Amino acid sequence: MNKITILIHCKDKPNIIASVTNFVAKEGGNIVYLDQHVDREQDVFFMRLESEFVSDTFSTEDFKNAFKNILAEKFEMKWRIYSSKKKPRMALFISKYDHCLYDLLGRYNSGELNLEIPFIISNHNDLKSIADNFKIPFYHIPVSKETKGKAEEKQLALLKEYNIDFIVLARYMQIVSSKLINEYPNKIINIHHSFLPAFVGAKPYHSAYKRGVKIIGATSHYVTEELDAGPIIEQDVAHITHTYSIEDLIAKGRDLEKIVLANAVKLHTNRKVMVYNNKTVIFS
Amino acid sequence: MNKITILIHCKDKPNIIASVTNFVAKEGGNIVYLDQHVDREQDVFFMRLESEFVSDTFSTEDFKNAFKNILAEKFEMKWRIYSSKKKPRMALFISKYDHCLYDLLGRYNSGELNLEIPFIISNHNDLKSIADNFKIPFYHIPVSKETKGKAEEKQLALLKEYNIDFIVLARYMQIVSSKLINEYPNKIINIHHSFLPAFVGAKPYHSAYKRGVKIIGATSHYVTEELDAGPIIEQDVAHITHTYSIEDLIAKGRDLEKIVLANAVKLHTNRKVMVYNNKTVIFS
Amino acid sequence: MNKITILIHCKDKPNIIASVTNFVAKEGGNIVYLDQHVDREQDVFFMRLESEFVSDTFSTEDFKNAFKNILAEKFEMKWRIYSSKKKPRMALFISKYDHCLYDLLGRYNSGELNLEIPFIISNHNDLKSIADNFKIPFYHIPVSKETKGKAEEKQLALLKEYNIDFIVLARYMQIVSSKLINEYPNKIINIHHSFLPAFVGAKPYHSAYKRGVKIIGATSHYVTEELDAGPIIEQDVAHITHTYSIEDLIAKGRDLEKIVLANAVKLHTNRKVMVYNNKTVIFS
Amino acid sequence: MNKITILIHCKDKPNIIASVTNFVAKEGGNIVYLDQHVDREQDVFFMRLESEFVSDTFSTEDFKNAFKNILAEKFEMKWRIYSSKKKPRMALFISKYDHCLYDLLGRYNSGELNLEIPFIISNHNDLKSIADNFKIPFYHIPVSKETKGKAEEKQLALLKEYNIDFIVLARYMQIVSSKLINEYPNKIINIHHSFLPAFVGAKPYHSAYKRGVKIIGATSHYVTEELDAGPIIEQDVAHITHTYSIEDLIAKGRDLEKIVLANAVKLHTNRKVMVYNNKTVIFS
Repeated sequence: MNKITILIHCKDKPNIIASVTNFVAKEGGNIVYLDQHVDREQDVFFMRLESEFVSDTFSTEDFKNAFKNILAEKFEMKWRIYSSKKKPRMALFISKYDHCLYDLLGRYNSGELNLEIPFIISNHNDLKSIADNFKIPFYHIPVSKETKGKAEEKQLALLKEYNIDFIVLARYMQIVSSKLINEYPNKIINIHHSFLPAFVGAKPYHSAYKRGVKIIGATSHYVTEELDAGPIIEQDVAHITHTYSIEDLIAKGRDLEKIVLANAVKLHTNRKVMVYNNKTVIFS
Repeated sequence: MNKITILIHCKDKPNIIASVTNFVAKEGGNIVYLDQHVDREQDVFFMRLESEFVSDTFSTEDFKNAFKNILAEKFEMKWRIYSSKKKPRMALFISKYDHCLYDLLGRYNSGELNLEIPFIISNHNDLKSIADNFKIPFYHIPVSKETKGKAEEKQLALLKEYNIDFIVLARYMQIVSSKLINEYPNKIINIHHSFLPAFVGAKPYHSAYKRGVKIIGATSHYVTEELDAGPIIEQDVAHITHTYSIEDLIAKGRDLEKIVLANAVKLHTNRKVMVYNNKTVIFS
Repeated sequence: MNKITILIHCKDKPNIIASVTNFVAKEGGNIVYLDQHVDREQDVFFMRLESEFVSDTFSTEDFKNAFKNILAEKFEMKWRIYSSKKKPRMALFISKYDHCLYDLLGRYNSGELNLEIPFIISNHNDLKSIADNFKIPFYHIPVSKETKGKAEEKQLALLKEYNIDFIVLARYMQIVSSKLINEYPNKIINIHHSFLPAFVGAKPYHSAYKRGVKIIGATSHYVTEELDAGPIIEQDVAHITHTYSIEDLIAKGRDLEKIVLANAVKLHTNRKVMVYNNKTVIFS
Repeated sequence: MNKITILIHCKDKPNIIASVTNFVAKEGGNIVYLDQHVDREQDVFFMRLESEFVSDTFSTEDFKNAFKNILAEKFEMKWRIYSSKKKPRMALFISKYDHCLYDLLGRYNSGELNLEIPFIISNHNDLKSIADNFKIPFYHIPVSKETKGKAEEKQLALLKEYNIDFIVLARYMQIVSSKLINEYPNKIINIHHSFLPAFVGAKPYHSAYKRGVKIIGATSHYVTEELDAGPIIEQDVAHITHTYSIEDLIAKGRDLEKIVLANAVKLHTNRKVMVYNNKTVIFS
């Protein structure tokens, strides 16, 4: 059985849904999921559709071509089509914090995540033993002001060699360069340890403590050129009180970070996220 | 401009979505919302669709007939079609608590609710002045063991006279009879002051206090024959601590009750709720 | 029975708790509540204590004097002592939005709030009928650029005439002047319709929509000279999705605003809030 | 520097707080934390106090004796006094689920937990490699109907040999016997995968799915003779929708379970939990 997921966005026009569902039916597909959204401010139509094909002769490539020629050009769609047969390949960038790493690898190990992790990159060697325990190749690529360019070349070479589809910065603690961002547009997922747009940048828990907020948060977003300003995928928060020290905020925040990041990774790999106008449409 | 909402459920089969969207397109409708759900355990398909029709000659009745003959029979659908031109008419049943009443009438007054409130019924006279302030007819129908039957006849007469579509029990504190339930199946919305199925029945805050839970809740559900066991529309919760007295729980719970009930009313009147197998599908 | 509440803060030193509890016991008081907090960064001690006195000859004034002479001077305390016999008097400033007004007056009416509302001030006449329904004097004091000074004089005269203890800006939509702030330091409670410090200033729901956040919030804080930057008393949030229009955000936000503001008012009137270093200590 | 934590409960009487704080001050202690609670229904007083002692000659044993003779007998207190110098020793009972195990060991490794884990017991061998990776002794003690008695004897022997203070059932999936419960009263922490008291017993996610709740939860409680009815330490919940399959509920629930259990363990080891009348007082 073949199963494909179609993501579409284009200018809103009449009859898009009927046209697409008709097309899929004619190609022999049975639609098992359909959700759509219209951004009325921007007049943009978004759609996510899953379809199953039982025919032995079904080819994803042929379907893509037909879709492109018959539908996509007519409605001037931006579109992506994924086969469920290919798991997305994720590179994990880490530094010294282990909570998101343990959490993601624990989920990966138990089969909760629909993805492959060909390798882990870190600018420090501290967490190598965790990668070893989970039997995932670990590359130590130190980053300093002087070596940043060279380090990035090594990273890009690895990403290419392993056919990486997307990158997760699991508290990587380094700003990634434009070059990497351009190679992976809306494909680098970061976890920021605040409820964005509050407390952009370094040391958000210190800022939260100083401001005396009663709630802290974590935000997972796609990385763009502007720091901590990319499209938000997922956010969550926790109530705190005046009794929390900065260390308490950091500890509480770790629980938010790991769950928010894991949810963002799941949404991304299940093809449920579309980006438009620096915002996300999340199909649930 | 005519706008209609279609709700469908039937046994899951191939091509339902394509068939429906095709039909709507051929009738001249532009689909502005579509969401569907498949209950894989029960093998049941659910769909909600909104469509706009610009033609001057569009008739909701004609559309319903065509839908019935062409689609509904073929797929053995249960279906409902609503025109946006007719606001649902809600009867409000209250007793002595005023928090849900103030909350609903405040929203009604500010235009937040897409409905009409032809009258309020209460088994006590205490809150009549609130109804008066909001200029809504108030019927005092006392209920005692002896008068229960008579009282219900009066209620039913009023419901019929005013063409009531659905009933909201805003902390009505009386068990409604089978007769009323059968006249308004999945059309009587109750607010229960606990996180169901915990603490069914009377005095849930007392039970929550005794059990020492750390979270209390409120549940809005359709009324069925079995007490507090109908399909759940909406639930919310709040964290509490050992410092809360029963009175504190009741006060905190009031905030949950009024917001949960208001949300349930909005979901119902926006035709976003479908009931199947004593559960709800809520299209967002 | 007399009941008093003592709030203290001072530089942290050994033996403060023992000294205070000893003093209260010697004065004949039975301590029914004690909570304290130490801000280790600032080295400041905070304490809240409730004590009951059964003696017929107990005088709050005498107790205050004794407290001042024996304890407060020794430990260089900032302190406040309240008798439960006097309810705080609240002035309500409103404008055109009615949701916080209905919510507060509904709670006031049902006895949930431990305060008095001598009057309501509004810069518009729109909500006068609500004040009338609840039988609370309503003063319409229009504010324009030219009349702002005069309007404020009228406000101050009313506040003085009615012996107002604190002010609640229930979506008042006007920036209050330094003069008012200085007369009521940490005694003017505002509700801001965002999760501060995100989206300071006007139209926060529009900003939240534009940024594509997945959670919105509301913040109640004391008013200081700097806009939306005063000590935060209470915050809450709600999850949203890409399907929410700005109008949906505003509607959802109303529910946050009214509950956050009501909670802040309750904390303030129950003497549970202390302010230090532009932050609050909230004793629960 | 010595630091001790005192937990007290007794019948409520005047002057307990003053007496205790006085006593501590006279013994040379500086109180750095004090919180108390009165259960007005039961007329019981609870108190938690932390005190620092700088004297070189301070002895926790001497302090305990003095406390017992001078205070505890007078007020007929139940009391416990802990020195911060001794970390509580936790035995971890697991079965086949690894999410709570990874979570607790990750926190343990990073220094977040103030405890020691001398060993892990499991009735299955599946998770041995995780224990090995974290270098914690692992005992495989199979349990069948026939061997249950023998298995428990082995468990008790290990608990005694390693001087275990408390037990955590991290999804252990076996009912522990009265004998173990009596040896460790209010010292066996379980995580139940529902919002108790809803869905007691086996397969709560299946029951939640069937009932159609809109929120699921997890509950950590002390184990008592009655199944899932012991004193609740911590609860949390997550919103779900009709789109969640049972597998989705289980996956979402895992995140609740691990965080709720970790929080309960932290509260217990930081001596913040008191049990009375099958409920907990949690000092924050």
